Amino acid sequence: MKKVVLGFSGGLDTSYCVKYLTEEKGYEVHSVIVNTGGFSEEELKEIEQRAISLGVKSHKTVNAIRSYYDGVIKYLIFGNVLKNNTYPLSVSAERMSQALAIAEYVKEVGADAVAHGSTGAGNDQVRFDMVFHIMIPGVEIITPIRDMKLSREEEITYLQSKGVAVNFEKAMYSINKGIWGTSVGGKETLTSNGMLPEAAWPTQLTKNGEEQVKLVFEKGELVGINDKTFAHPSEAIQYLQTLAGPYAIGRDIHVGDTIIGIKGRVGFEAAAPMVIIKAHHALEKHVLTKWQLSWKDQLAQFYGNWMHEGQIMDPVMRDIEAFLQHTQENVSGEVFVTLMPYRFQVTGIQSPYDLMSSKFGKYGEMNSGWSGDDVRGFSKIFGNQTMIWHQVKNSNS
Amino acid sequence: MKKVVLGFSGGLDTSYCVKYLTEEKGYEVHSVIVNTGGFSEEELKEIEQRAISLGVKSHKTVNAIRSYYDGVIKYLIFGNVLKNNTYPLSVSAERMSQALAIAEYVKEVGADAVAHGSTGAGNDQVRFDMVFHIMIPGVEIITPIRDMKLSREEEITYLQSKGVAVNFEKAMYSINKGIWGTSVGGKETLTSNGMLPEAAWPTQLTKNGEEQVKLVFEKGELVGINDKTFAHPSEAIQYLQTLAGPYAIGRDIHVGDTIIGIKGRVGFEAAAPMVIIKAHHALEKHVLTKWQLSWKDQLAQFYGNWMHEGQIMDPVMRDIEAFLQHTQENVSGEVFVTLMPYRFQVTGIQSPYDLMSSKFGKYGEMNSGWSGDDVRGFSKIFGNQTMIWHQVKNSNS
Amino acid sequence: MKKVVLGFSGGLDTSYCVKYLTEEKGYEVHSVIVNTGGFSEEELKEIEQRAISLGVKSHKTVNAIRSYYDGVIKYLIFGNVLKNNTYPLSVSAERMSQALAIAEYVKEVGADAVAHGSTGAGNDQVRFDMVFHIMIPGVEIITPIRDMKLSREEEITYLQSKGVAVNFEKAMYSINKGIWGTSVGGKETLTSNGMLPEAAWPTQLTKNGEEQVKLVFEKGELVGINDKTFAHPSEAIQYLQTLAGPYAIGRDIHVGDTIIGIKGRVGFEAAAPMVIIKAHHALEKHVLTKWQLSWKDQLAQFYGNWMHEGQIMDPVMRDIEAFLQHTQENVSGEVFVTLMPYRFQVTGIQSPYDLMSSKFGKYGEMNSGWSGDDVRGFSKIFGNQTMIWHQVKNSNS
Amino acid sequence: MKKVVLGFSGGLDTSYCVKYLTEEKGYEVHSVIVNTGGFSEEELKEIEQRAISLGVKSHKTVNAIRSYYDGVIKYLIFGNVLKNNTYPLSVSAERMSQALAIAEYVKEVGADAVAHGSTGAGNDQVRFDMVFHIMIPGVEIITPIRDMKLSREEEITYLQSKGVAVNFEKAMYSINKGIWGTSVGGKETLTSNGMLPEAAWPTQLTKNGEEQVKLVFEKGELVGINDKTFAHPSEAIQYLQTLAGPYAIGRDIHVGDTIIGIKGRVGFEAAAPMVIIKAHHALEKHVLTKWQLSWKDQLAQFYGNWMHEGQIMDPVMRDIEAFLQHTQENVSGEVFVTLMPYRFQVTGIQSPYDLMSSKFGKYGEMNSGWSGDDVRGFSKIFGNQTMIWHQVKNSNS
Repeated sequence: MKKVVLGFSGGLDTSYCVKYLTEEKGYEVHSVIVNTGGFSEEELKEIEQRAISLGVKSHKTVNAIRSYYDGVIKYLIFGNVLKNNTYPLSVSAERMSQALAIAEYVKEVGADAVAHGSTGAGNDQVRFDMVFHIMIPGVEIITPIRDMKLSREEEITYLQSKGVAVNFEKAMYSINKGIWGTSVGGKETLTSNGMLPEAAWPTQLTKNGEEQVKLVFEKGELVGINDKTFAHPSEAIQYLQTLAGPYAIGRDIHVGDTIIGIKGRVGFEAAAPMVIIKAHHALEKHVLTKWQLSWKDQLAQFYGNWMHEGQIMDPVMRDIEAFLQHTQENVSGEVFVTLMPYRFQVTGIQSPYDLMSSKFGKYGEMNSGWSGDDVRGFSKIFGNQTMIWHQVKNSNS
Repeated sequence: MKKVVLGFSGGLDTSYCVKYLTEEKGYEVHSVIVNTGGFSEEELKEIEQRAISLGVKSHKTVNAIRSYYDGVIKYLIFGNVLKNNTYPLSVSAERMSQALAIAEYVKEVGADAVAHGSTGAGNDQVRFDMVFHIMIPGVEIITPIRDMKLSREEEITYLQSKGVAVNFEKAMYSINKGIWGTSVGGKETLTSNGMLPEAAWPTQLTKNGEEQVKLVFEKGELVGINDKTFAHPSEAIQYLQTLAGPYAIGRDIHVGDTIIGIKGRVGFEAAAPMVIIKAHHALEKHVLTKWQLSWKDQLAQFYGNWMHEGQIMDPVMRDIEAFLQHTQENVSGEVFVTLMPYRFQVTGIQSPYDLMSSKFGKYGEMNSGWSGDDVRGFSKIFGNQTMIWHQVKNSNS
Repeated sequence: MKKVVLGFSGGLDTSYCVKYLTEEKGYEVHSVIVNTGGFSEEELKEIEQRAISLGVKSHKTVNAIRSYYDGVIKYLIFGNVLKNNTYPLSVSAERMSQALAIAEYVKEVGADAVAHGSTGAGNDQVRFDMVFHIMIPGVEIITPIRDMKLSREEEITYLQSKGVAVNFEKAMYSINKGIWGTSVGGKETLTSNGMLPEAAWPTQLTKNGEEQVKLVFEKGELVGINDKTFAHPSEAIQYLQTLAGPYAIGRDIHVGDTIIGIKGRVGFEAAAPMVIIKAHHALEKHVLTKWQLSWKDQLAQFYGNWMHEGQIMDPVMRDIEAFLQHTQENVSGEVFVTLMPYRFQVTGIQSPYDLMSSKFGKYGEMNSGWSGDDVRGFSKIFGNQTMIWHQVKNSNS
Repeated sequence: MKKVVLGFSGGLDTSYCVKYLTEEKGYEVHSVIVNTGGFSEEELKEIEQRAISLGVKSHKTVNAIRSYYDGVIKYLIFGNVLKNNTYPLSVSAERMSQALAIAEYVKEVGADAVAHGSTGAGNDQVRFDMVFHIMIPGVEIITPIRDMKLSREEEITYLQSKGVAVNFEKAMYSINKGIWGTSVGGKETLTSNGMLPEAAWPTQLTKNGEEQVKLVFEKGELVGINDKTFAHPSEAIQYLQTLAGPYAIGRDIHVGDTIIGIKGRVGFEAAAPMVIIKAHHALEKHVLTKWQLSWKDQLAQFYGNWMHEGQIMDPVMRDIEAFLQHTQENVSGEVFVTLMPYRFQVTGIQSPYDLMSSKFGKYGEMNSGWSGDDVRGFSKIFGNQTMIWHQVKNSNS
């Protein structure tokens, strides 16, 4: 009997896949769910029970939070990656981790095929397809929903015909949650104009006033918050989310290019990611040189875009990670942030590597390191070529 | 008698320069102030009277608001330029316009020298020096404050000795205002940690609640707000400032690299610039292709940095402007923004050039333009080289 | 009767297509050949007669040499585009021009479908497909050779069965000729090691000794050679080819990434293109500023790669062309080149825009424009941030 | 008595410095020469004797060939660095190594000052100044030739007055030799037009015919040539020079931007560097992915330019080196090169990491990894956004 590993979320699409693959295709289905921070223990239990009740041969829960951080989020922080200056890649990055974990499981199980519940309309199909092509070439990729262009109604009818108690109400908003942010799509994001209503946001405003938070970074990684330290940076992220989330911070709308060429729009909330990225970037502005900041921006922009397009396994990504990692050597220190309803402000940093040291001259004050004459000479030479260019130009006109 | 053109702001440093250049150096001083949006008619009148009372041979007021917009701000908007993702280059950009206008005036007056009141500690000295070297080579550049390393006290003593009624109280915060934002430096910005207190911000919060604003762009330029149109985009910026300013929007701290190598920190408020840049960028995300967005980011980052370093006259800046201008062909439409105390939200856009058209498939929905099989083939080919790379690698290990 | 426009070269694949589309599919076939410099009048006549004898409804010859230059080659010269520092994109660029001309003809004819003879193995299929999808969306694209995975033998057998006198000997080397270079593929290029033998090169060495050539550029375009001027730069290219070709200049092997992810290797000879690019670049080194040269390199590298991948219609290409065009403002002057067997040497330039003017100081000699002290000050400030970085680092270790 | 370390080459300028610093300034002079491959043992001995006879307190010879390779050349090879696509940075790179070794020696000796013989006209003054400012801040930098704007004649007269037997004939051409190439400046390079005459080249053509050479790379480093292996890659470079040099390979003229803004022109011969870079690049084209090649180009271009401008100690250089190093993981294999008079040809490569493997489909042949339909789907999706852009544009016109 041929084995298939199925990425299973417990939703309508993947429930359909279990039944379809088992009963119509005769596969032995091994379902797997990869938790990248979006599920509670309880939810994972429910999903497991659902899988079993649908008739899978086995069900596996992979806790990928740490590997997601180690393999992806860490570098998104190093690079201050915000796609189009806005979006922390909450979903795109997570899919990569999930696809890789599923591919790993396929190898472990020795499956003949791998299945995912993607439709033919979004980015995820490409991300799953590509990672599978690359990591488990030769393993057949099965995508029933995409291939048969199934509607919700068709899926429900089929499941009912198989005796499955279906209770899939279509939610007003489609939500995807993970440690690096939660996306929210629905009515208002389907057109180019319209903001999600207050009630649509999964995390509601429940704190008021101001709150000071201290973030401690070590070589670019968040290792402490206020006086707490953590066994792993992923726990620091989750803890910060409990502090910042109730302020309804980090909400925005992302307008982006899908891999398949159309434009898409989606709401997201990402309190911890936004605070971390802005705090990390503030620290970097103090400890990195001008060209370190500049090249980081360029490489990170590409890194984020290429990740978004599912290209995480291109070896150039490892090369860029080596670059990013190396830039973080001195990115250590404390960053001070004020949390407020709907917004936050980085108010300063403290670092032994701070280049804004009064020892070397304060901005706006004369100092002993160099003289006005030095700057005068600098200005002359710094503009020399352009001076010559204009002289030559004038002599021709 | 030798003539010198002096950039004159009416402050202590340039007041000193008038007397020093006249009485100690025997120059005929022609003072000039270039208004880039920071001065009212009344203030300009007062500055003129002060110049005359100090003994200048002539005083000239240049209204450079439109030329500042046409030559600089326009391209900062096209490029969504925020230095280090934060600062709209309020001061850096303005200095360029001022230096160019002063150089122009030097040629008009036929002066032998040009003087500016910069100290030896900041960016402005380099900016003025460079533009003068380039645009009026051979004209002597005189910088008394820098060259003699004068302290405030020394300047005051000298002026008093010359019978000048000096009433220069040192302000708590040093403020520089222009159409593209206001910088605020002082106590808290002199170290790496500390936020300006509420009272330090020139524009105080005086509006509450929410306000909807519609920004109308034509080929990347802001031509209308709500139902108003304007004779020149610079007026639209100023009008938007009257709407958004009272919400205390656009305040932040910029940490940056000075041209002379040290790090500096400065507060700024820039309500209209921040709203315009975010709105313009939102529109672009809908009407430009992925690679247009990507290359714009890279070129604009350099453009902003190079501008910041005083290199506005490098011909590469004209080349980049040609690129940026060309990208704006379809950047026309309306952008909807909600203003709120201390923040704002772009809520959507409407444009005939919107690529997120339902005609070509909605994100997350199947469409008639392509099939799941097309995407399946795409994914295979799109990841092909990386698949081969991993296969080759595995075969070697 | 449904109409199909067929890109027709007279070779086996497209001959097969004529018969197949006419007789098996019932199409009215309108063949078209787009000459980008690879065919003589005589060859074009022969191809026309062949088309007619195969039974096309009509045959059209498009002379695309000028439009190829105006729309593509011009910018490849402006950008000094050599893929992977080697290959002038001889074939890739040409295919774009051909595909666009065919799409234009499809509209003119009002055809229902467009056909090309590409196999499923190379770049050309993607280039044709993409341009057709973009420029004539909705028009069916027919690719019999690719779709039926036909072998040469199968095609020959079919044509013979239709009474076509087939005389298609498989050439030792597959050659593609155009105004911007000739590619040569065969035995040695099918593996990673091996150089084409002397006899395989279409243009043989027939000149010896040295020959001086003067190339005259005006705003980046080649307008004159020695004392000859030309009605159009494409004629200057062709004339230069007659001078440089017999020296067997510009031969090399290109190893590159195909659009579909595999690596490919192909020989090429491109005497005129290589001489022009190197001469143009030499002139630019004299008349452009450092950052103009640097940004041109970066944008042109992308431009060439994106062109190679068939993305000529992405609007970002027009934006980059606007940039490139603007950089050429001062790229005027004469470039002196020595032609020799198998190689050439740019020996110098003469231009009114030459920035290497003795007026502004000679390299290696002191001058009056600035002093040693100016440079001393410059060096101090130019290295200031890095000095601070090392000081801060040392104080932490 | 104050100590000064003097970079000493034995030439007129630094000979002057010894006497001047000793007798006019009362310094204890410790001369040092840093050999980066340009001097024979004999020459170094002569230089030492000259230093001693001029009256230095001590003289030191530093063999920096290996550290030059390890710290600089290695990365220039990894990045295939050719400034303006032409020049392997022969002199610029070497100066960095020399300046660093001198700074190290200053610390060892505990000197109060450091002196170099640069004039005020070239790049070297900036390179030495900057490295000294950064690595030994506070140590006084003395540059007699620059500061006193001395002419050759003045120097000679002074030395003669001190009883120094001066025998400095001005060479026709100024030559700077090192392991990474030899620069040749003189008459023809002082203007924009003119090639060095055959006799001016230090290495004359003495071999004829063709010679096959096999270069063996391991992780990007040249470790073997033909059947020889080497204790250190710097020895492989020197050995290759003995093979390729007599073919007069690698001669060209570099036109470049000096750090101080003027344009300069210089001849160079660099047989081994040119062969190595082209061979290394050829290997990379086979084993790296498309985006690895692309990003390497961009980063290496900056790396070379920034090195050229003396900025080797900017920490961004270490970050880029981490990137470059990581890209070399699979750059192992053999490269085959044919040497001929005045030119060479890379004829192929052999590598276990070659991505041009026939297992994954040959360029131009159908294969089993993907189908024509896959490519058809790919083409549709790959051009989708541009298709939409054109449709939207057409609907507006």
